[in-house]
Amino acid sequence: MKSKLTVIKVGGKIVEEKHSLSHLLDDFSSVEGHKILVHGGGRSATRIATQLGIENRMVDGRRITDAETLKVVTMVYGGLVNKSIVAGLQSRGINALGLTGADLNIIRSVKRPVTDVDYGFVGDIEQVDSVLLTELIKKSIVPVMAPLTHDGKGNMLNTNADTIAAEVAKALSSAFDVTLIYCFEKKGVLRDEEDDESVIPCITRPDFERYMSEGIIRGGMIPKLENAFNALDAGVSEIIITLASALDNNQGTRIKK
Amino acid sequence: MKSKLTVIKVGGKIVEEKHSLSHLLDDFSSVEGHKILVHGGGRSATRIATQLGIENRMVDGRRITDAETLKVVTMVYGGLVNKSIVAGLQSRGINALGLTGADLNIIRSVKRPVTDVDYGFVGDIEQVDSVLLTELIKKSIVPVMAPLTHDGKGNMLNTNADTIAAEVAKALSSAFDVTLIYCFEKKGVLRDEEDDESVIPCITRPDFERYMSEGIIRGGMIPKLENAFNALDAGVSEIIITLASALDNNQGTRIKK
Repeated sequence: MKSKLTVIKVGGKIVEEKHSLSHLLDDFSSVEGHKILVHGGGRSATRIATQLGIENRMVDGRRITDAETLKVVTMVYGGLVNKSIVAGLQSRGINALGLTGADLNIIRSVKRPVTDVDYGFVGDIEQVDSVLLTELIKKSIVPVMAPLTHDGKGNMLNTNADTIAAEVAKALSSAFDVTLIYCFEKKGVLRDEEDDESVIPCITRPDFERYMSEGIIRGGMIPKLENAFNALDAGVSEIIITLASALDNNQGTRIKK
Repeated sequence: MKSKLTVIKVGGKIVEEKHSLSHLLDDFSSVEGHKILVHGGGRSATRIATQLGIENRMVDGRRITDAETLKVVTMVYGGLVNKSIVAGLQSRGINALGLTGADLNIIRSVKRPVTDVDYGFVGDIEQVDSVLLTELIKKSIVPVMAPLTHDGKGNMLNTNADTIAAEVAKALSSAFDVTLIYCFEKKGVLRDEEDDESVIPCITRPDFERYMSEGIIRGGMIPKLENAFNALDAGVSEIIITLASALDNNQGTRIKK
């Protein structure tokens, strides 16, 4: 039987504020078995870029990453946020290892082709090398992954943390029984956006299609769930969308085949 | 017989400018056998701190690291400089892994006690854990180490890159035949500071004592050489002080027992 691995993606807000980070790391520490933390850091990147006089340009919530912005996200995601988490986990007795996709050549991407929008130095993932990652995890090392990859030609690339979490979860599903948890600012997928308590406990693909046709699931939640079902098709056992503070209990929305 | 390991420390200037970094990475790539790169990044840290409106305070060439400065060095050393090197080495087919002392708990430090000077969040190294590092190196992984450690209580600490290189070289000398190379802005230890060609090819401890008494070796070179002899006493096979651009030939000053 494959051993269990939990891949947890946490957004920027939670990891960028000292108190909520501390709380998250306590919760993350209590998750049993092998685990990986994938983090964001967008708010800090925006703040530091602003302080450095670099304009923050976003299209549909995605950052346009020019050469100067790439330096900022490499500093903030790969340095500031990543190492705060690593040091915090080490202080909790967890043998964390901070990684970008460039380290150990774990995630190689291609610079997103320019279409209507030129996203700049943004990576679309081509390949996850799970061999070394699997060995490290089996030694009880806990990878902490920043939303950065590389192109194999010497350039770092800014890469969506949700996508990194999904691709890493898929790549490791041949070696582990993988649960992928997206920590979210809501308690889960809501039946009514205005009612924080209206969490849908479980969504299968037929449910998803019905909810979409009924207009209950819409907007940015649609691609999130599409990605979740793709990950299930690619071998991930279970996907959970929940609050970061609910990591250690049985809440949120479970996405199942 | 132990296999050969070369630990190379390069200062900030070389790794912070695109052209000289590219040159260095070419030279580093051609160094045969197992290897580790330890880098600085002080000039970038000074520049970014200035842009962020943080005052750069130095005492005897050492940075006073208050909480805001710690964030800057964590970003710059652990993110910007480290990941530029890692991506650059990956593009040259070298399986680089960027590390701070917090990652894998490799280097634990203690915050420097306040005496006449309060250096702030500066680490004095207590312990290097070479077990995992040895395993990684034997898998042909090339560690790229930023001048940052942690205190085991959740804090990163700014740590001198020369010291990191020496302590890592010492800790690995039981598993490897270690050569430690300090890349320097001069061709080696000079007999005459005004004459760049006056390199002393080899210095033993009796030579060192004689040169000191004659006033030929003085100033900042004295602690550098003291550290070198300490490293030899602790098991490092050879120490070389040379130009970064001379990595791949037989120049510089060799420090021998």
